[in-house]
Amino acid sequence: MRRFVISQAKNLIDQTRRRRPLPNHKSLRLRLLSLAAAPDSAPVLSSPRLFSSSSDMSGSDSSSSSLPVTLDSLNPKVLKCEYAVRGEIVNIAQRLQEDLKINKDAYPFDEIIYCNIGNPQSLGQQPITFFREVLALCSHTALLDESATHGLFSSDSIDRAWKILDQIPGKATGAYSHSQGIKGLRDAIAAGIEARDGFPADPNDIFMTDGASPGVHMMMQLLISSEKDGILCPIPQYPLYSASIALHGGSLVPYYLDEASGWGLEISELKKQLEEARSKGITVRALAVINPGNPTGQVLAEENQREIVDFCKQERLVLLADEVYQENVYVPDKKFHSFKKVARSMGYGEKDICLVSFQSISKGYYGECGKRGGYMEVTGFTSDVREQIYKLASVNLCSNISGQILASLVMSPPKPGDDSYDSYIAEKEGILSSLAKRAKTLEEALNKLEGVTCNRAEGAMYLFPCINLPQKAIAAAEAAKTAPDAFYCKRLLNATGIVVVPGSGFRQVPGTWHFRCTILPQEDKIPAIVNRLTEFHKSFMDEFRD
Amino acid sequence: MRRFVISQAKNLIDQTRRRRPLPNHKSLRLRLLSLAAAPDSAPVLSSPRLFSSSSDMSGSDSSSSSLPVTLDSLNPKVLKCEYAVRGEIVNIAQRLQEDLKINKDAYPFDEIIYCNIGNPQSLGQQPITFFREVLALCSHTALLDESATHGLFSSDSIDRAWKILDQIPGKATGAYSHSQGIKGLRDAIAAGIEARDGFPADPNDIFMTDGASPGVHMMMQLLISSEKDGILCPIPQYPLYSASIALHGGSLVPYYLDEASGWGLEISELKKQLEEARSKGITVRALAVINPGNPTGQVLAEENQREIVDFCKQERLVLLADEVYQENVYVPDKKFHSFKKVARSMGYGEKDICLVSFQSISKGYYGECGKRGGYMEVTGFTSDVREQIYKLASVNLCSNISGQILASLVMSPPKPGDDSYDSYIAEKEGILSSLAKRAKTLEEALNKLEGVTCNRAEGAMYLFPCINLPQKAIAAAEAAKTAPDAFYCKRLLNATGIVVVPGSGFRQVPGTWHFRCTILPQEDKIPAIVNRLTEFHKSFMDEFRD
Repeated sequence: MRRFVISQAKNLIDQTRRRRPLPNHKSLRLRLLSLAAAPDSAPVLSSPRLFSSSSDMSGSDSSSSSLPVTLDSLNPKVLKCEYAVRGEIVNIAQRLQEDLKINKDAYPFDEIIYCNIGNPQSLGQQPITFFREVLALCSHTALLDESATHGLFSSDSIDRAWKILDQIPGKATGAYSHSQGIKGLRDAIAAGIEARDGFPADPNDIFMTDGASPGVHMMMQLLISSEKDGILCPIPQYPLYSASIALHGGSLVPYYLDEASGWGLEISELKKQLEEARSKGITVRALAVINPGNPTGQVLAEENQREIVDFCKQERLVLLADEVYQENVYVPDKKFHSFKKVARSMGYGEKDICLVSFQSISKGYYGECGKRGGYMEVTGFTSDVREQIYKLASVNLCSNISGQILASLVMSPPKPGDDSYDSYIAEKEGILSSLAKRAKTLEEALNKLEGVTCNRAEGAMYLFPCINLPQKAIAAAEAAKTAPDAFYCKRLLNATGIVVVPGSGFRQVPGTWHFRCTILPQEDKIPAIVNRLTEFHKSFMDEFRD
Repeated sequence: MRRFVISQAKNLIDQTRRRRPLPNHKSLRLRLLSLAAAPDSAPVLSSPRLFSSSSDMSGSDSSSSSLPVTLDSLNPKVLKCEYAVRGEIVNIAQRLQEDLKINKDAYPFDEIIYCNIGNPQSLGQQPITFFREVLALCSHTALLDESATHGLFSSDSIDRAWKILDQIPGKATGAYSHSQGIKGLRDAIAAGIEARDGFPADPNDIFMTDGASPGVHMMMQLLISSEKDGILCPIPQYPLYSASIALHGGSLVPYYLDEASGWGLEISELKKQLEEARSKGITVRALAVINPGNPTGQVLAEENQREIVDFCKQERLVLLADEVYQENVYVPDKKFHSFKKVARSMGYGEKDICLVSFQSISKGYYGECGKRGGYMEVTGFTSDVREQIYKLASVNLCSNISGQILASLVMSPPKPGDDSYDSYIAEKEGILSSLAKRAKTLEEALNKLEGVTCNRAEGAMYLFPCINLPQKAIAAAEAAKTAPDAFYCKRLLNATGIVVVPGSGFRQVPGTWHFRCTILPQEDKIPAIVNRLTEFHKSFMDEFRD
């Protein structure tokens, strides 16, 4: 097994080295070829080269064989892990972007547009002013003693900063906090959850984290002992789940979302996959549900959520509810309901179901990805198990305080009557309504392309169109030793500068091909993106149509 | 093995429930007993109780047996992991602190003094003004457009904020960055390393992290496949290492520091332990060295470092250099030298030695623990191995940008001639000289106690005195089912409110007993701490002297 994984990893790396995009004309072809050969031999590039080091040690070359660490001495779980959202295609894009700075005329586009990742502020989305005011005041508290500050900041941001500082022992925003996060901030989050759900929330159930990812890792670390422990994951899925399960040595038990019914989640499918896993000797420990969906963008119906809760209760599974897109719902006929609200409204309490809800400051209308904040709300675990979760949290001491502060603000934003309220609402609604418009425009454009079908983005930040690729394109991809959807995405990048992620990075029904594209480029860029995409797709199909 | 670990964990938890401090008078005794019985039955307490949840599910009580997660279904690696710096004694202290708010007169002290953890700002250390000015400006960039800002901020903080923003694509401090960190900030860090060492540093070798801990975890994850992989660690050690090795399922191969020679690191001891591990079939992958030492406070001599580098080269070990206390050296006869500088000065380059240096913004004179920033400089790894490190970094997207900004500032602080330079130097030198004074005062006080010997704190933030405990105290500890040094520390806490960590949490030569005490309480508190400690120790010895 270990040898297999190593050989797989080596193949992947060899493929990366050998990869050759198929450009439109000779000079571009040569340039792209030299870029594809990087990181090992790219004198054409300015810095930074991605994996090169100061002395330029390439691969596991023989001259460095006396070094203690080689690919086949590494943890095979690390080799097995994949993370497509920042994978090969993004590396190519970063090299293109660097080269574009010095060779503007060599490409048929003048910028790289990153639609690979839900990173709104990187594409021009502005942060919510109130949130940043509070953050600045908490970062440099001396400002609070200056009268000039009142002219520069809203009065409620000053009040809020004081309130937050009063909740931090010694007002020390530079100190490690309680490993679950500052108690007063957890109080604010619990109050926000109560206001959202209409059911009680306990600040002692909140574990604040640097984004949602560390929370997911913590739960995987807790639940997975070996490959005999399985986690039910949607397919397609956000690759954090497959990566985390691989790193912790567990088994991903897939359940397929039904593309034909708008990425529907069928209980019969869950049951089938659960039974199949059990028949292989796998103990399924948890069910991961992403709602709104990533990469698929669907919003679950409340009735469906009730079925899922009952399924977890009956089958004694932990429900891992990825609810980071809870503010991102774009269609009037759907509404976000937290799984905790659904479970409580069914009369299920702490003793009935183990439920973990993940929330992040990176998504929503705030999109504060770089601040790395978030939390998980952990309910239904016995106190001895919770002590183990606390211990895991304490090994990394605490999540960053700026992220903690933002997480509390996201769950308790300005209220009517507050100085910032009107501008806050204008900023929030401006962002959300624009996202809804962009989602609609891109969805319609995609559905117009030959052989492409695209479900609507009811929520989240993505479209996940299905591309019916011609056999000739599939054969060309095979010849280039790459997945057909990756082949398509690389061609798209090289022709347009648009970066999307191949569906194979999220897994998909075998034999189908997709890509994930964010809806995040600013509105004024969308028409150009639609044009470039449409033009590229036409020429691609012209080249490969059967 | 798994059953053993679970039974160990259960014992630990049972002990925690049964623990009973031995107070001085009856009412205090009753109060402490009720506190010790928490979290399960502590109506005497105000919130928060540490591990209780809203529905108060205690332990693995039978009523919740239908829940899917129980202690013995958890990952045994998690159960095995221990982290004393935030362990049992800190939990007791937190409960005492809460109770103290409502029952002031019940205790012989009026505050809890946390000397358990290197968390300077929690004890009143002020952040460096320049760093916080830059952070505030980068948090709320609209300030940079306001003329009033010039009256509130130093001119070089404004210049620096602009410079940093110019290095961030779209000036978006709220966007995910490159998974290694923002390139311009890594440039600043590399320049800082070059200025420190006099040898080149490559920004592509820098991986920015949320504090040093995630970097250590990443390297352990990379290097450890099973319990057959060993990591040489100093004893006593900072428990991050034992915790991380346990979580990744490896073997900690101990090497003992020689207390008699000021916690000396002997190559003969390294060789002996390496051979012994190899004879047991363990492949030793790396040597962890903490310099300046934690919890031991020694600063390695350059000659000793050269021997260590040669040892790693000869034995083909990765050198994991924990250099987070590089700014904390208090004695004129010692100086910090990075292991990279030492290796390069010996003529060893990339192809000779694999070296990882960890740095953090939590320590030094800045002490920005809550901001969670740091980096590791990774040299001597082949590009295919580096790709795997990059992949691990990318699964969590990036470290937080505020921490990244602070890490760049720490490595490129104001220079002579800058507006902030004089005040920056005054703040820095004020903190460092005060830390040196506090270290000396506490060391002298400890050495005056009966049966206590304490090496000097040459660096870092800790003293690690050896306590020669009377047999009667050891017997009392055994009767209370606790380690003798933990027994001492709990008694100290209950009598004085001072929180220190038992030496057993760091490991120590069997049969010796220590505790770790930070030097971080503000100078004006030190005399009272010395008095309370001295008085307690005398009464403890009076009670237990053989």
